[in-house]
Amino acid sequence: MTLLLDNDDVRAVLRMDACIDALETAFRDYARGRAVNRPRSHTYTDLGGGRHYLLKTMDGSLATAGVHALRLTSDLTYENGRRREKLPAAPGGRYVGLVLLFDVATLVPLAIVHDGELQRMRVGATSALAARHLARRGARVAGIVGTGWQAAAQVAGLREVFELEEIRVYAPTEEKLERFAREHAGTAVGSAREAIAGADVVALATNAYEPVLDARWLEPGQHVGSLQGHELDEATLERADLVVVRSREEATFHFAPGHAPRAAAERKRLDRVSPTRVVELGEVVTRAAGRGSDDDITLFTGGGTGASSGLGIQFAAVAHVVYEAARAAGRGRELPTEWFTQREKT
Amino acid sequence: MTLLLDNDDVRAVLRMDACIDALETAFRDYARGRAVNRPRSHTYTDLGGGRHYLLKTMDGSLATAGVHALRLTSDLTYENGRRREKLPAAPGGRYVGLVLLFDVATLVPLAIVHDGELQRMRVGATSALAARHLARRGARVAGIVGTGWQAAAQVAGLREVFELEEIRVYAPTEEKLERFAREHAGTAVGSAREAIAGADVVALATNAYEPVLDARWLEPGQHVGSLQGHELDEATLERADLVVVRSREEATFHFAPGHAPRAAAERKRLDRVSPTRVVELGEVVTRAAGRGSDDDITLFTGGGTGASSGLGIQFAAVAHVVYEAARAAGRGRELPTEWFTQREKT
Repeated sequence: MTLLLDNDDVRAVLRMDACIDALETAFRDYARGRAVNRPRSHTYTDLGGGRHYLLKTMDGSLATAGVHALRLTSDLTYENGRRREKLPAAPGGRYVGLVLLFDVATLVPLAIVHDGELQRMRVGATSALAARHLARRGARVAGIVGTGWQAAAQVAGLREVFELEEIRVYAPTEEKLERFAREHAGTAVGSAREAIAGADVVALATNAYEPVLDARWLEPGQHVGSLQGHELDEATLERADLVVVRSREEATFHFAPGHAPRAAAERKRLDRVSPTRVVELGEVVTRAAGRGSDDDITLFTGGGTGASSGLGIQFAAVAHVVYEAARAAGRGRELPTEWFTQREKT
Repeated sequence: MTLLLDNDDVRAVLRMDACIDALETAFRDYARGRAVNRPRSHTYTDLGGGRHYLLKTMDGSLATAGVHALRLTSDLTYENGRRREKLPAAPGGRYVGLVLLFDVATLVPLAIVHDGELQRMRVGATSALAARHLARRGARVAGIVGTGWQAAAQVAGLREVFELEEIRVYAPTEEKLERFAREHAGTAVGSAREAIAGADVVALATNAYEPVLDARWLEPGQHVGSLQGHELDEATLERADLVVVRSREEATFHFAPGHAPRAAAERKRLDRVSPTRVVELGEVVTRAAGRGSDDDITLFTGGGTGASSGLGIQFAAVAHVVYEAARAAGRGRELPTEWFTQREKT
């Protein structure tokens, strides 16, 4: 049977600790040549008026787990000033994002998983994994900037890998800030600078298109995680002693001549950083690279910098955990696997 | 509703003429920048003993039809001498190959189509489309080499675009040759050279890993279609006055360091052909390029040469025809589209 798993199923079965462990194994295997990744591709169709249809895919395999994942999102994007929004254009104001998990021995799809909750957990767990390996020993204070969709998973991930004594949170909308601080046992502060001051680990979880921190605010020894590069200014990339990315492989962009979406032009920022300071998370996990001293500023970043952010191997790792846990828990809708196989060789 | 369509459904509804027309429109749109293609990617996982798991994907959109297709194959490959075989490793000795057809306005999958029959028709129709635009006017004699899985679609395609008076067929296995000739009203001949002699249009439809024709056999004015580059020797590529490919974009290959499958090394043969003689089928369809004189030898080729063979836009075109025809005929299994949508934005 092939399991169809929605976000409620994923929420019910996916634990942060299992997610971090699976990602650690995946990045270790990737660094050691036992996992294979095909970088993300973006295929844009210009629909006029600043709107594009975007099919984004990436895939990757984990030989040790025996699985291969293909993640796809089918989106309608809209350029709103500098910001690129996604419109809920599917019936009922919904979105389309799926992870197909294949068995490398039997070829069949083991599961079709809605990617919303899985994606949130993947990002939170990967940031936590990076922080575990990059932050100073005994990190106790976290500073969070942003209270958006990803922020809660960032906090959950950091709580999993550190014994946090204090979480300082800043966001520009007071009501959201207060609610988030309450829900996550954090302390609301009045500015990003205050959230960062004295923090061992800084997590940026905004959807800002302008830098949200000033490089001069950073203190020796801090580790900074950033979910999307627009939050960072060039000075922060320059100031970091070590810049860690998921993969050096670059995403590809496909569009008709003369119809380039702005996203295709906004990459390559990491090209300006001395390559000797840019390493992959897999190298950090296998201890081939890492923090040089307690005074180093380390930066884990991805989107918007030119480096691949989501990797196929990450979706393989997390979807595999979800699939195994859902099977054990009896969750999901069972679809006959024969629906997806054929006699014909192509 | 999302339609799940198997090969019987495709056989029941897909007509060769509709398939050729849809592909002609797709290649015209592609040449004019109204269709977008993401070249094929191959992600290989080394399973040892010459076996690889291979997830192959490509995607493309047709703005005028309002659809985007993602084609994926989940295969187990085996290197048998120079030949790469696919093993039917799915339960019941089956294969996995699917085309997902998306609506660019509503984002949802309109259909999930088994790719076997669709692929066969796509290849036959594309060869016929190329032959229609490249062969001399009034072509009456076709020479077919090979009687494999693709050969019947080659004959069907050529019959659709030409008033053929004679079809000469050669294949090394006499029994298969006799049966094929009978079933397709062809004349069995004793050698590839005899099949080619005097033909206006030559179709190579073998799975040979060695050249099946000698460039010296070719006659002025002939059009040759080849399904996979191994059938051709370098001299044929050199002798052709015009070499036509589906797309100049190259496929990508992904594998762990030191685990390259042989397929990844066997490309780029077209690099040795003078680029002024290599054009895309879209340029031919829009008459930006084509046969220069009745004496030119024209060659349409793809696989094994380094040029992309299957394109996402082709799958979009053919799957769209299949989807519309299946809807009209009430074929296919209806799956609730909500199964594939979510509230979460990712």
